[in-house]
Amino acid sequence: MNLEDVETPFLTVDRSVVQANIGRLRTRLDGLGVGLRQHVKTAKSVEVARLLHNGTPGPITVSTLAEAEAFADAGYRDILYAVGIAPHKLARVVALRQRGVDLIVLLDSVEQAAALAADRTGMAGIPALIEVDCDGHRGGVAPNDPILLTIGQTLRDGGADLRGVLTHAGESYFADGDDALRAAAENERRCAVLAAETLRAAGHGVPVVSVGSTPTAHFATDLTGVSEVRAGNFVFFDLVMAGIGVCTVDDLAMSMVTTVIGRRPDKGWILTDGGWMATSRDRGTARQRVDQAYGLVADIDGVLYDDLLMSDASQEHGILSIRPGSTAPLPGIPIGARVRILPIHACATAAQHDRYHVIEPGSRTVQDIWTRVTGW
Amino acid sequence: MNLEDVETPFLTVDRSVVQANIGRLRTRLDGLGVGLRQHVKTAKSVEVARLLHNGTPGPITVSTLAEAEAFADAGYRDILYAVGIAPHKLARVVALRQRGVDLIVLLDSVEQAAALAADRTGMAGIPALIEVDCDGHRGGVAPNDPILLTIGQTLRDGGADLRGVLTHAGESYFADGDDALRAAAENERRCAVLAAETLRAAGHGVPVVSVGSTPTAHFATDLTGVSEVRAGNFVFFDLVMAGIGVCTVDDLAMSMVTTVIGRRPDKGWILTDGGWMATSRDRGTARQRVDQAYGLVADIDGVLYDDLLMSDASQEHGILSIRPGSTAPLPGIPIGARVRILPIHACATAAQHDRYHVIEPGSRTVQDIWTRVTGW
Repeated sequence: MNLEDVETPFLTVDRSVVQANIGRLRTRLDGLGVGLRQHVKTAKSVEVARLLHNGTPGPITVSTLAEAEAFADAGYRDILYAVGIAPHKLARVVALRQRGVDLIVLLDSVEQAAALAADRTGMAGIPALIEVDCDGHRGGVAPNDPILLTIGQTLRDGGADLRGVLTHAGESYFADGDDALRAAAENERRCAVLAAETLRAAGHGVPVVSVGSTPTAHFATDLTGVSEVRAGNFVFFDLVMAGIGVCTVDDLAMSMVTTVIGRRPDKGWILTDGGWMATSRDRGTARQRVDQAYGLVADIDGVLYDDLLMSDASQEHGILSIRPGSTAPLPGIPIGARVRILPIHACATAAQHDRYHVIEPGSRTVQDIWTRVTGW
Repeated sequence: MNLEDVETPFLTVDRSVVQANIGRLRTRLDGLGVGLRQHVKTAKSVEVARLLHNGTPGPITVSTLAEAEAFADAGYRDILYAVGIAPHKLARVVALRQRGVDLIVLLDSVEQAAALAADRTGMAGIPALIEVDCDGHRGGVAPNDPILLTIGQTLRDGGADLRGVLTHAGESYFADGDDALRAAAENERRCAVLAAETLRAAGHGVPVVSVGSTPTAHFATDLTGVSEVRAGNFVFFDLVMAGIGVCTVDDLAMSMVTTVIGRRPDKGWILTDGGWMATSRDRGTARQRVDQAYGLVADIDGVLYDDLLMSDASQEHGILSIRPGSTAPLPGIPIGARVRILPIHACATAAQHDRYHVIEPGSRTVQDIWTRVTGW
């Protein structure tokens, strides 16, 4: 089977690019003396995750309990569920822990800590990280908020296991330039360490100080006090990350393959059978310096067309056209030809599909099919 | 099982609202003397489609061959695949026709007509509609373009079956007010009929004159010359449709149920476990008069909170906050409570899930699970 045989639209992943992306971040974090707890929410694929630790299950971060369960089935035993725990989900957490998985949960309120402490379903001490807010983009408590100590006390009193603190530099996705990225990374580190020190001063052991985002992981220059870095998007990268300056377009490992089904020379359009159902509706570069619309367009072998964008999408139609302001001619791609769309946001595009068709550079042969975990 | 037991996030559908939406459009089109070929791309559910024809398989429109195959398995025999045909997909088309399905394809180029005419895989006369462009939003040939006759001739010469013409008023999704919607509906009708007349004048039989979109289906006042109306979104409706004025918020049949996992009083936020993975990234009301962000928020029983929006989303986090400019207080929804998010774009939100949990009004009991067709 090769890329011309698979029904379109579908995803293809270049394994060697994933390996290069992983190798680069590993080398970087090794140099900083910090471990990597990869976030598997982007690829949601055991096969992709396995490329990190030479096939052995390493520590991972998940965004759903469905991921935790699927990775547990594949032998992973050190799993952080990095979305604030809903009390009703504790039963699934306990079930995983009873299978021998060291599943760690996240929380940022006394109510959640109390629910954790009250859990008497047979397992003492569900481990928890307290979420710390470093830049106002999501949940978490301020690193100097007294509530931090109340949460810690509630966990201790209830016999739960305060494993540490976690923060995520949401602001780094909007950072403009290397200096801003380095500053976001240092702010993330500083907030996490400050929260850990606050808890330690109150007598808590805080072994885990977890920070991370793909941008800060690639720009941090000092991770003193940090015990682990989380990053997920870096396995595939995407045009949002290229726009921030975290990677180049050549580092994008995944693309969506679609077939040309029409042309509108009067409009300057090429029509494809890959719409937003295949790319997602994510328009994450719209607020960046260069808006890449729904993605850049390459030929079936991955060679980019000059200034050709996937400019619009309906459910099962894509529209390709030349970037506004460019004088590049609309390429004469015939009906039936296949093109690749480089994604705006790999997490969102990948989520529209259930598998990856794996290739190696310079070949159209599908070497492998990797499936994705779906649902919650 | 009831809505408090299902793992969040998930979709719920009120069957009685779907039935009311279907009944209203049926009555309307019966009054205009035109049949309804429902588009199943929104719900992608055999159970939803069956509500239309009292359980018997009626004519349908599909957006993928995967839908065609799934509905064929369920006994549907009159299926229009309304995305321009890619030549490599003809093998699946022929396989469906060999199963006794009258599968009709769509095309708008001589190349596609030639591919259809050249097909010699054992089935004479694959039926095709020619796509006509009525308002410049996607593919299709202008209704007075001579290429229309060339396509018709190519089909006839090759022994294919020119079944008719099809158009879709893409502009109707951006119409502002009832007059604009009625004008869009009349333009859609006029273009389709003109194209049919042009082909008939050249000696082609053109039994099918197919028009439709959910907005125009609800605003057309005259469908003379039209043989069928396509509409799909109307089974569920959504906030884009309410914003156009095609329905009211009370007509929305589907919502996404999510659990509150945190609060940020300093920001005016409530955090949930339902992010863009559960709603999609569709922000279709952003260019409407009232921007509903990622959706309106109701309690578990569907009662709307005053001016509460799902204002932002990351992959597995939703942020709820009060609409900018409103003085409504942030409701005190506790951690662990469930809320419903009314979708911006039902087709896109539904696509993030694999099933519906079916309820009746005034009850939290899940009466049924309806599954969705996925993939291509």
